[in-house]
Amino acid sequence: MTTTAAQPPGPAVLQLSRSVAQLTADLVDIESVSGDEARIADAVEAAVRRYGSLSVRRLGNVVVVRTELGRPERVVLAGHLDTVPIADNLPSRLAGGRLHGCGTSDMKSGVALQLRVLDLIGTAALEPAVDLTWLFYDCEEVESARNGLNRVAAEHPELLRADLAILLEPTNGTVEGGCQGTMRARLSIAGRRAHSARSWLGSNAIHSAAPLLQRLADYRAREVEVEGLSYREGLNAVFIEGGVAGNVVPDRCLVTVNYRFAPDRSEAEAEQHLRSVFSGFELTVLDSAPAARPGLDRPLVRRAVQALGGEVAAKLGWTDVARFSALGIPALNFSPGDPNLAHRADESVELAQLERCERLLVGFLEHSSGAGTN
Amino acid sequence: MTTTAAQPPGPAVLQLSRSVAQLTADLVDIESVSGDEARIADAVEAAVRRYGSLSVRRLGNVVVVRTELGRPERVVLAGHLDTVPIADNLPSRLAGGRLHGCGTSDMKSGVALQLRVLDLIGTAALEPAVDLTWLFYDCEEVESARNGLNRVAAEHPELLRADLAILLEPTNGTVEGGCQGTMRARLSIAGRRAHSARSWLGSNAIHSAAPLLQRLADYRAREVEVEGLSYREGLNAVFIEGGVAGNVVPDRCLVTVNYRFAPDRSEAEAEQHLRSVFSGFELTVLDSAPAARPGLDRPLVRRAVQALGGEVAAKLGWTDVARFSALGIPALNFSPGDPNLAHRADESVELAQLERCERLLVGFLEHSSGAGTN
Repeated sequence: MTTTAAQPPGPAVLQLSRSVAQLTADLVDIESVSGDEARIADAVEAAVRRYGSLSVRRLGNVVVVRTELGRPERVVLAGHLDTVPIADNLPSRLAGGRLHGCGTSDMKSGVALQLRVLDLIGTAALEPAVDLTWLFYDCEEVESARNGLNRVAAEHPELLRADLAILLEPTNGTVEGGCQGTMRARLSIAGRRAHSARSWLGSNAIHSAAPLLQRLADYRAREVEVEGLSYREGLNAVFIEGGVAGNVVPDRCLVTVNYRFAPDRSEAEAEQHLRSVFSGFELTVLDSAPAARPGLDRPLVRRAVQALGGEVAAKLGWTDVARFSALGIPALNFSPGDPNLAHRADESVELAQLERCERLLVGFLEHSSGAGTN
Repeated sequence: MTTTAAQPPGPAVLQLSRSVAQLTADLVDIESVSGDEARIADAVEAAVRRYGSLSVRRLGNVVVVRTELGRPERVVLAGHLDTVPIADNLPSRLAGGRLHGCGTSDMKSGVALQLRVLDLIGTAALEPAVDLTWLFYDCEEVESARNGLNRVAAEHPELLRADLAILLEPTNGTVEGGCQGTMRARLSIAGRRAHSARSWLGSNAIHSAAPLLQRLADYRAREVEVEGLSYREGLNAVFIEGGVAGNVVPDRCLVTVNYRFAPDRSEAEAEQHLRSVFSGFELTVLDSAPAARPGLDRPLVRRAVQALGGEVAAKLGWTDVARFSALGIPALNFSPGDPNLAHRADESVELAQLERCERLLVGFLEHSSGAGTN
């Protein structure tokens, strides 16, 4: 919703008292492709430091904010600041009751919700029934090793400690439990280099990738039920590369695949499955992150589901709920973004849904105490 | 044959009076991957300018040298200074009667022959029966538009004018006539981007490349006889690329193919053939260069074949003989390099063959006059 396409030269400024829609647009208009989050992290830090009642820590491009109200329970609101690469879809644009642009759905609308709650509590307009921790972090859209929340979980696990974490990842305004695991692996196909004018002396590694790609094209993904929620898997090539020069038969072709697996499989079982699918090909696991079970057996989780709309479905994308699960903290996904629009050039978020989610979240935090109701 | 792997910091120095083997090693040890020929062109220019009887022109990274002896016929000796990318095969290394290293075969042994002839004529040790033009040029191993000889042919065609051109491209010490054409085309496969955790909402362009690669793997190349010489064709993927991010179903996959075609096909017919092989896929021709017929009907060509060993075969690689053919100048390929070793990490040249080629070439130039023999 800016009027110029170019980024302003100075530091970005955020006013957290604006409407959640306007705040989302302001966040979207600060480009923050993974690895390039310094500017948006600076803007968030500067904005939250204006509230004297909150403690603020900056760790790289992660910003952690906490209340210390002495409440018996603590809830984390967590969201990542980065986006996938821009696809000619900035600056943001308002049309048909929706805000369009890179990150509108995944997940700057969620970050805007975090910041709206922070503004209300920081100005004492909202008296929460729980203590709150806000985690704003970098590099969620790239390999697990660079993930800012991962780093904080490893180096300062006390900052994540809570009774419930709510991740503002896109869920279309419903609660989604657990998450699928994700594993990236590289398949390497070897050939023999030769001049392309005498190609019969070589062996073309790109041609030899045909049966591998055919296996991917033919692959039928599982649909698995876990704790009553249905998880649909997926196996995709996400990169392919090969070639030496325009007149050389290439001696190597590399295919990177991404496997999304249901919470009934461990990372070891996921790897075993990939090795079976790609038997005969050289496979190296690049990175992986475990799936998380829904964890709907805790009272605070059930109260959250109730307050946030009453329904819960399986989370199909991998999210950082798995990092909280690994620390024994139940975690839900909830935000207005449409996961089906995430990472697409036509990404957008519905403003009515965004405002509804703000109301539900504020309502949950005002009345989330379990005292006398459980 | 240098003792250190690093390039010396100063300008490279060439002594043309050294043995043809040593001169080849000196040339090989000056790295000159396509696009990076300034240093070797400087070295060649500096070396040839020491001979006062020869006229020298520098055009970009092309060096043109001419005798003006008033002979009735003129022969061009042409060779390119660039190589394909280094494959951990520098500096050069002498073993088993062969010189090993990037460019030993294709075609610094040929450039060494050019320079040896130049040294003999420049110091009046060889009295040639014809006038000579030497063309040393850049960017032969990359797309046609960058080729230095192509540029000179377009801008200064008078510098190519001759009654016969001998290209010192690898022929294993025999004469090879004509050449195959070459065409590069890009095949573009479209998909629909989506988050890889919800891949059923997208369409994976890399998976969709499977049938295209299978057509390449299944392709059976023609063998064609032209003017009694047998030309074997080839069709190869030389590059493949696709991918947006590690968690995105890619919406595009690009495959670049290189088609080598016999002299019975024009460039238009070659394109038609590719469009037929890849019907159903979006194809764009990137560049092409025509094939050349052997052209064995000219007396000077027949005398050259006779003097250079008496045998002639089809040239399978594309060479710049086609550029001379286009100007009506008959052209042969002749040099000690082994075309089957060109562009390979284990590229090498046999020293005995190198010395034999020097003797044959000098002999031809001394006695090449047609007077009284035709």
